[in-house]
Amino acid sequence: MTKTVNVALIGYKFMGRAHSNAFRQAPVFFPELPVKPVMKVLVGRNRDAVKAVADQFGWEEIATDWHEVVERDDIDVIDIASPGNTHAEIAIAAAKAGKHVISEKPLANSLEEAKAMVQAAKEAGIITLCNYNYRRVPAIRLAKKLIEAGVLGEIRHYRGAYLQDWIVDPEFPLVWRLRKEVAGAGALGDIGSHNIDLCRYLVGEPVRVTAMTRTFIKQRPLPAEDMGAWGSSAGGGMGEVTVDDAAAIIAEVENGVMATFEATRFALGRRNYNHFEIYGSKGSIAFNFERMNELEYFDGTQPTDRQGWSVIQCTNAGDHDFIDHWWPPGHPIGYEHTFIHAIVDFLYALDKGEQPDSDFLSGAQTDAVVDAVLKSAEAGQWVEVERLS
Amino acid sequence: MTKTVNVALIGYKFMGRAHSNAFRQAPVFFPELPVKPVMKVLVGRNRDAVKAVADQFGWEEIATDWHEVVERDDIDVIDIASPGNTHAEIAIAAAKAGKHVISEKPLANSLEEAKAMVQAAKEAGIITLCNYNYRRVPAIRLAKKLIEAGVLGEIRHYRGAYLQDWIVDPEFPLVWRLRKEVAGAGALGDIGSHNIDLCRYLVGEPVRVTAMTRTFIKQRPLPAEDMGAWGSSAGGGMGEVTVDDAAAIIAEVENGVMATFEATRFALGRRNYNHFEIYGSKGSIAFNFERMNELEYFDGTQPTDRQGWSVIQCTNAGDHDFIDHWWPPGHPIGYEHTFIHAIVDFLYALDKGEQPDSDFLSGAQTDAVVDAVLKSAEAGQWVEVERLS
Amino acid sequence: MTKTVNVALIGYKFMGRAHSNAFRQAPVFFPELPVKPVMKVLVGRNRDAVKAVADQFGWEEIATDWHEVVERDDIDVIDIASPGNTHAEIAIAAAKAGKHVISEKPLANSLEEAKAMVQAAKEAGIITLCNYNYRRVPAIRLAKKLIEAGVLGEIRHYRGAYLQDWIVDPEFPLVWRLRKEVAGAGALGDIGSHNIDLCRYLVGEPVRVTAMTRTFIKQRPLPAEDMGAWGSSAGGGMGEVTVDDAAAIIAEVENGVMATFEATRFALGRRNYNHFEIYGSKGSIAFNFERMNELEYFDGTQPTDRQGWSVIQCTNAGDHDFIDHWWPPGHPIGYEHTFIHAIVDFLYALDKGEQPDSDFLSGAQTDAVVDAVLKSAEAGQWVEVERLS
Amino acid sequence: MTKTVNVALIGYKFMGRAHSNAFRQAPVFFPELPVKPVMKVLVGRNRDAVKAVADQFGWEEIATDWHEVVERDDIDVIDIASPGNTHAEIAIAAAKAGKHVISEKPLANSLEEAKAMVQAAKEAGIITLCNYNYRRVPAIRLAKKLIEAGVLGEIRHYRGAYLQDWIVDPEFPLVWRLRKEVAGAGALGDIGSHNIDLCRYLVGEPVRVTAMTRTFIKQRPLPAEDMGAWGSSAGGGMGEVTVDDAAAIIAEVENGVMATFEATRFALGRRNYNHFEIYGSKGSIAFNFERMNELEYFDGTQPTDRQGWSVIQCTNAGDHDFIDHWWPPGHPIGYEHTFIHAIVDFLYALDKGEQPDSDFLSGAQTDAVVDAVLKSAEAGQWVEVERLS
Repeated sequence: MTKTVNVALIGYKFMGRAHSNAFRQAPVFFPELPVKPVMKVLVGRNRDAVKAVADQFGWEEIATDWHEVVERDDIDVIDIASPGNTHAEIAIAAAKAGKHVISEKPLANSLEEAKAMVQAAKEAGIITLCNYNYRRVPAIRLAKKLIEAGVLGEIRHYRGAYLQDWIVDPEFPLVWRLRKEVAGAGALGDIGSHNIDLCRYLVGEPVRVTAMTRTFIKQRPLPAEDMGAWGSSAGGGMGEVTVDDAAAIIAEVENGVMATFEATRFALGRRNYNHFEIYGSKGSIAFNFERMNELEYFDGTQPTDRQGWSVIQCTNAGDHDFIDHWWPPGHPIGYEHTFIHAIVDFLYALDKGEQPDSDFLSGAQTDAVVDAVLKSAEAGQWVEVERLS
Repeated sequence: MTKTVNVALIGYKFMGRAHSNAFRQAPVFFPELPVKPVMKVLVGRNRDAVKAVADQFGWEEIATDWHEVVERDDIDVIDIASPGNTHAEIAIAAAKAGKHVISEKPLANSLEEAKAMVQAAKEAGIITLCNYNYRRVPAIRLAKKLIEAGVLGEIRHYRGAYLQDWIVDPEFPLVWRLRKEVAGAGALGDIGSHNIDLCRYLVGEPVRVTAMTRTFIKQRPLPAEDMGAWGSSAGGGMGEVTVDDAAAIIAEVENGVMATFEATRFALGRRNYNHFEIYGSKGSIAFNFERMNELEYFDGTQPTDRQGWSVIQCTNAGDHDFIDHWWPPGHPIGYEHTFIHAIVDFLYALDKGEQPDSDFLSGAQTDAVVDAVLKSAEAGQWVEVERLS
Repeated sequence: MTKTVNVALIGYKFMGRAHSNAFRQAPVFFPELPVKPVMKVLVGRNRDAVKAVADQFGWEEIATDWHEVVERDDIDVIDIASPGNTHAEIAIAAAKAGKHVISEKPLANSLEEAKAMVQAAKEAGIITLCNYNYRRVPAIRLAKKLIEAGVLGEIRHYRGAYLQDWIVDPEFPLVWRLRKEVAGAGALGDIGSHNIDLCRYLVGEPVRVTAMTRTFIKQRPLPAEDMGAWGSSAGGGMGEVTVDDAAAIIAEVENGVMATFEATRFALGRRNYNHFEIYGSKGSIAFNFERMNELEYFDGTQPTDRQGWSVIQCTNAGDHDFIDHWWPPGHPIGYEHTFIHAIVDFLYALDKGEQPDSDFLSGAQTDAVVDAVLKSAEAGQWVEVERLS
Repeated sequence: MTKTVNVALIGYKFMGRAHSNAFRQAPVFFPELPVKPVMKVLVGRNRDAVKAVADQFGWEEIATDWHEVVERDDIDVIDIASPGNTHAEIAIAAAKAGKHVISEKPLANSLEEAKAMVQAAKEAGIITLCNYNYRRVPAIRLAKKLIEAGVLGEIRHYRGAYLQDWIVDPEFPLVWRLRKEVAGAGALGDIGSHNIDLCRYLVGEPVRVTAMTRTFIKQRPLPAEDMGAWGSSAGGGMGEVTVDDAAAIIAEVENGVMATFEATRFALGRRNYNHFEIYGSKGSIAFNFERMNELEYFDGTQPTDRQGWSVIQCTNAGDHDFIDHWWPPGHPIGYEHTFIHAIVDFLYALDKGEQPDSDFLSGAQTDAVVDAVLKSAEAGQWVEVERLS
């Protein structure tokens, strides 16, 4: 008999939609899941807006106050998809109430909050997931597999960059992602953290960093109403941008790896370029999320006259993680599938009673790198990354 | 008050899953749909297998005999996702019963059957859709828009190729797609028809063809049990391959366009390479479904020192069809979305009482081209394409 | 002691410059050549123009009448780089005079002329080269090597296309390449022949063809003065285009290979896209001259989770033909190098007294395919290719 | 009447060959040059080796002692293509003797030497060129043109990387490029300096840097005989690598530009990947020398539904610098052409009596950035770049 867990999701905008769809689709395409999610409650402050999304995706109920929901006996899992400044309070309350907790990334807006969340989760003995969703891209799972099998040999370089361009226009309004009190950090926290997390996932822990951040446009029009990161229209007056527009980082990483990271929202022409290159002594790989179904691979052990960068389509059932649940070779999957895969992994983790890959501790460690970067950029010097445990 | 239509889907394997998901997701991501589908009955001969898929995707009931389902008063739409040899009989019965009908492509295994389907639909006055799903790829919709706006100028060349490699291994078994009595044709009918259809959609009607077909592997192991095109395992004994493995075609197309088409299942390394290039007097475009979110565009009106092939990511809400219902720029959608878009268009067509793009008549016209190709390949001479109306 | 041969070159425009540079550079970068060319005479009808080019490239003398030059005792090699309508007469005279002969491709403007050239060469016992220069691209030599080593397995498909766009503008004047009496054929003879030749070089002989040709622009402005294919300016009045603008071909090739070829000067955005794809049972390759230092290779024998199309940079000394004479890995060579390599091969052939790859017989066989294509396009039926010997 | 200048070239290995070819080819393909070089003397310590190269490329004489050559009255230009530790002494002597001087990059192995060279050149009133050859790639000249015309708008980011892989193998011997006393620096000086120079050329001067360097392999086999950077074979014993294998840099650049640079010889699969991306408020560009004839360009002013990264083939006569002297559109040029273009520019500079782009002062400024990087890497802190004049 299949177990079920009742889920409450907090947040209903961009991330809320992605998570809603994930809960909806996971049991359909992964029918063998040992634990099935029940989409119980969708939570948000604007009742009408929440109601619309709940009806759309099939949530049984809605609520406007997360405090009540966290206390409900019939809720097993709290999934937090609201902005970063809300994560710690909700997650700690949920942990204390004994709920398993998923949090969107970054885990928190400050390292202190992140550590408190880890502590609360540990004390409560719950299963946690900090949703660095790119870890569940089949191409990145192949990268992981190749590295763990030693196919790349000794890793020398991680070159990461997460480039976007959605705020190049100075008339783009001051949405919440541009305000420190809500978002914590700018490009660095929003997208740079993804790239740092992938370095941690694939290569090792950054131990020291030197960095620069930059805010190119200091003031922007105030939005009439904040409708999420995208889709806002300008209201009246101007407000100050209080986060970074761009960050550049050099890092020493465990095991002698040299790493660089760049994050910006001013790389005109890069829509969602989450990119990395990893160079080893026997092989190298490269990835760009805009072509998420592909992994580039250079095999230095091939005969020298036929070595080259291969474009591997990671869509072969049996060969590539998760793909046997989708379509035949060469039939792309999309962005939303990464969220479905994350929920699948989380549900298996619940069943086994073991933390999934990318739990709160891992999410907090990524926050520790971000924290060191912010300190380095401010102080103009190298900063050690705190190692959590 | 929103209208609803009760849907019965016939077929539950590869295409059945894609259609099931489409009915499931269309109203979620397109909540403004004027007509909502109710997933009423899933039909297939193997009760247990049908039941499993029905439970997975949320069909209310199952049935093993399509004849009964077609007659049910509470069914409004019949969707045929079973192999080509079943399309005509089911569709004609459904039309006579007054149901609106969707059919997977090719419309039928012979031009005669296809014409009978068109006739039946016309007499019944129903809405029909022959699901050439690639017409609903946002990148291809952009291609259509550019051509219709005259951006490419006068079109000279259509170069089409749909290349796959899933039967390169001679040990791959004799699945139904390799048997003429079920599939009608081989690579030509299965994938070549898609590419021909895109020529018709974007550029114009082929009027004369010369062609060659080839069957590279004449005999294959009989499958133990046919589990769909992919995933079959070999049983005992050998059987004859009765369809083409590959086809090459030259066509004269309306309006002075010169066209070539190639379809093969022996292009090792091409997983699902549905590719075309269109060359005009002012601009050119190219597309490859393996990178389905991209359209390549050459703008011959730019200053000559900066002309080049542009890779347009067709993921901008507002700019690219359907995309405002999905994710932000640079966040890919996948194969399954093309089916969702097709269902969306069909539901709007039902509401308006007008045929959607790619109705049965259009599907039959694509069959007419395939028919001329087969005749040309057999006779070794140019053959005129019959023009239906 | 190094042998030398005295060379006379006929033609001084686009091809004349390329050949001049090749003679000039070959002994510099291939100092171990057993035979050194002496740049003796440059021949052309316009004395001043010839003089300028001769001075530029270092030809010792000039002449305006090739008949005299062919008879000179001190000339060992006649190199014909003038338009196709002149090849046969010059080559036959040179052969009769006992000179070794190089001819630009196509060997002749008609198959009859080509056969006469082969016959004359055979009777004279001379060394000949028909300069299908792309055979000396290192990437194509790698393709040859892989195929001969059986790395691709059994070849199924050759898909060739040579696409250009230099006459898309209807105001582009009627240069000699657009007149049948000088050029013989249009896109088919000029560039399609290259692609056909590469099929012959790499895969096998076409034995039967069906084809279509098209002339999109029937009349063009007469040029004031013909300055070669490029660089002409319009004079007064209009003239008729008497060659094809585009050709499409399907061919049966030896050994069960299915081939397609396309050649056009109306593929806007393709500057010099000499492209082919070859699909085998174990591996596949693709090439585009616009990226001439790269060969794409798909190795179907790799583990299935990491198969992909590799971009091989064919610039490794020791690994790739000719490259040890140039620059370090990753340092591109260019178009002109293919001519230098051809001269190198020819000079080695002189030393050995053996025909080089692509002699007159081979060039004539390519003409035989072109001839069959023209007949097929005119007659609207399949035509057998004559096999020369 | 054409002027001539007598040239002496010092160095005959990799760079010596590239310069020799440049002097040889410049007057052939640029016949309108106002000043013609006479290839007078080739200088090197190994008489036999020098003789061989001189014969190969057509130098009139050879010499083994540069001191004598520098003093010769009949020499007008001294070109220094020997390792970096020799540049200053030779260049200063040549300047004092009133010769015009070309030096390979980096200008010198230390900033102090570089400044002395600038001073000597200034006092002598000579014309100088520090050969950062990539400035003469047509694609990079197009980049320059677009930026200067304001097409990219306000520049935000320069992302540079010059990646190679020729010493990944720990058995690769300790050639001179790996020894500080000869090469000055490692990847940073050899290739990183090119990328820094392109930032200076295209975007602006770096003013502050923070950096890390790394030597992955500390000891290597001693070479039997140093035959240049490539092609050495191991002798006996081990020696210490005294330069960096890799460097990573963050820089503040004039005009608010944020820059990153990476240089490494350990990026397996990158043969000669001299790469940069420049992001502006209206457009962006990207370049990779491995595809040197292409510039990628994103035009943010196009209609939003058709914006994309364009691959511009920079091979159109009239449109792209230098190209009218070479071949038709789509016919690639190669690495060696950049040297020819540099000599062309230098000869024009001689004629005009004005410094060419990239004179000694400019070369020294690039050295100043390298110097700041080395200091930053050593001190672990931000370092200001000295501004020369």
